[in-house]
Amino acid sequence: MYPISVRMQGKKVVVAGGGKVASFKVALLLEEGADVTVVSPEAVNEIRQWAEKGKLKWISRQIEISDCEDAFLIIAATDNPELNEKLAQNAKPNQLVNVITNPEKGNVHFPAALKRGKLLIAVSTEGASPKLAKKIRNDLAKLYDDSYEEYLEFLNECRVLIKSKGLEKAAKNKLLLEILQDEFRESEEKRRKFLESLN
Amino acid sequence: MYPISVRMQGKKVVVAGGGKVASFKVALLLEEGADVTVVSPEAVNEIRQWAEKGKLKWISRQIEISDCEDAFLIIAATDNPELNEKLAQNAKPNQLVNVITNPEKGNVHFPAALKRGKLLIAVSTEGASPKLAKKIRNDLAKLYDDSYEEYLEFLNECRVLIKSKGLEKAAKNKLLLEILQDEFRESEEKRRKFLESLN
Repeated sequence: MYPISVRMQGKKVVVAGGGKVASFKVALLLEEGADVTVVSPEAVNEIRQWAEKGKLKWISRQIEISDCEDAFLIIAATDNPELNEKLAQNAKPNQLVNVITNPEKGNVHFPAALKRGKLLIAVSTEGASPKLAKKIRNDLAKLYDDSYEEYLEFLNECRVLIKSKGLEKAAKNKLLLEILQDEFRESEEKRRKFLESLN
Repeated sequence: MYPISVRMQGKKVVVAGGGKVASFKVALLLEEGADVTVVSPEAVNEIRQWAEKGKLKWISRQIEISDCEDAFLIIAATDNPELNEKLAQNAKPNQLVNVITNPEKGNVHFPAALKRGKLLIAVSTEGASPKLAKKIRNDLAKLYDDSYEEYLEFLNECRVLIKSKGLEKAAKNKLLLEILQDEFRESEEKRRKFLESLN
């Protein structure tokens, strides 16, 4: 398996199934701005509410293969493993498919993810132990705490400013490395002074 | 950005450009069994050798948009940022595109990844600081050492055996949680005894 981060903004995602697992995946996808369609005769409250608010489209019937035709990502999350596998088998070669009931049947796994603003750490085990993936994610959440969110904004701002200066590669890299020191994450004053020195 | 792990086995990847960066990405993709085509008038030695050995296809000319037509993933890695962006602009909505020279122009980022057998930890920063992503990856490499490779094989073996027993959910989860204790990673004897108890 090959780890990538994908921009989901505007991408069509078809979710087969309207249970708790589907709803959990949908929440993350809506955050990323995906264009989500849920196809399921029943749906949990969250999904019904998102549909009412126009945040997603809910088609209240059993999924059909043609529903997935132009999907970028298909999430097969019904409680029927055979149906989920059938959706995976009928996907086009270039479509992304996650099969909740049996990830080996699809071509996409969802890692356990830790997000701190722009910092994203994703942990997966190729299905060997989803519980270990979650445990490692939780351990990393202590190590990489909330302070990273603001720190990443600082790093981003610095990067744009440093790039705009037209410096030689060595000088540029020196600055980009300097700001990796923990003191910049720990001290707002340090960050402010450094930004002033760049402006 | 949304982190996923993708099965690249047999997937068509078109790489525009034949330099060092292209070669580094290609190495990982070949490991994952992707069907790689490099299009570039020139290519570094590694790419030439892979082409000679039949591990990839090298087309020795400037890339054309039609080369990308049925690609699952396009890696725009020429030294010409305008050409790279043009490839991204002309990609179909559902194609995955990484633009090496300017990742914001594509829809895929490559995280800094740490692999220990089946364990995969991917770190990305939405481009805010690739250097921080690498630093965190290197810190994690010390924390999650080589011992995880064998440990993940053990966890996988246990999972298959535990699943095959037809236990109640609570009993199954108890066993799956028990093996997350560090002593199983640290002691081969502990692992052997546990596997014996399952068989």
